[in-house]
Amino acid sequence: MLTFGIDPGSERTGYGCIESDGRRHRLVACGSLSAPDGASFPQRLQAIYEGLTVLLAEHRPSSVAIENIFHAKNVRSALRLGHARGVALLAASSAGIAVVEYTPAEIKRAVVGFGRAEKQQVGQMVKLLLALDAVPAPHDAADALAIAICHMHSSSGRVTDAVRSAPPPSRLTNWRAYRP
Amino acid sequence: MLTFGIDPGSERTGYGCIESDGRRHRLVACGSLSAPDGASFPQRLQAIYEGLTVLLAEHRPSSVAIENIFHAKNVRSALRLGHARGVALLAASSAGIAVVEYTPAEIKRAVVGFGRAEKQQVGQMVKLLLALDAVPAPHDAADALAIAICHMHSSSGRVTDAVRSAPPPSRLTNWRAYRP
Repeated sequence: MLTFGIDPGSERTGYGCIESDGRRHRLVACGSLSAPDGASFPQRLQAIYEGLTVLLAEHRPSSVAIENIFHAKNVRSALRLGHARGVALLAASSAGIAVVEYTPAEIKRAVVGFGRAEKQQVGQMVKLLLALDAVPAPHDAADALAIAICHMHSSSGRVTDAVRSAPPPSRLTNWRAYRP
Repeated sequence: MLTFGIDPGSERTGYGCIESDGRRHRLVACGSLSAPDGASFPQRLQAIYEGLTVLLAEHRPSSVAIENIFHAKNVRSALRLGHARGVALLAASSAGIAVVEYTPAEIKRAVVGFGRAEKQQVGQMVKLLLALDAVPAPHDAADALAIAICHMHSSSGRVTDAVRSAPPPSRLTNWRAYRP
């Protein structure tokens, strides 16, 4: 069973794919995606979307896990993060893969054992749980792996599969055209 | 010259396409996109993206105009709006169409004449400028047309074409994979 974690950001989006038999986890792939210097903001979003689309087609995970955000420093950073997270959700939905969301506290609790853990502790536990030689870099990749591990630890029934219970994606758009 | 305005929203996204010879504008198409009841949030984003992709391929506008948002009621509504706006920008960028952004005040000033105009005044001016029998409904469609009109009124040099001056979209993603 493969799970694909995403840590979206408009500058850099982390990803991490793990395989698990329910007790032991194995790193399949992780890293980060970004756009070249000088790319416009729409092109940054395109880079995230196209990168994730390629990775999801390559690994075919059974689910995509992503952090559920409720807070941000301010409205402007919430807007920027929303753009990046939107194209990440779109990439999963377009690939027909179920999306599951976890709060930051759920992720820390699942990986470290308590919900207010520090970023470094999360990285160290990712290293330990996946039997790696070092904490994956950049930190977005480690964070994405933590989200995937959280899903593996949580997927014993609790998770509602929002995508699969919703209507099929074919002919998804409702059109309402105005005729002058 | 065709301009395509977008008024993004996670529940409903308005669009409006107009043709202009620089002095007179003609309505080409307008309306709104949404997802069926019961669609998941990722599927709502997919409905927006797929709907806009079809429309942009059909009309092939020379530019996409969209409102530039800096404010929102709160962080949560900024996040939701960011998601919808992100997939709208992605649809334009993926279609290789230049994106231009205008603030709400710029749009009102361009359409009504002053930056603090009421929503109804914007709708009435859209009706007048496009010689329509009624204000287009739903209001998202009228708002999208106002954004397109704003671009037509502003595109005499001032607008920087962010997309075209940036690197070409081919091979856009920078990959940074972590090798364990």
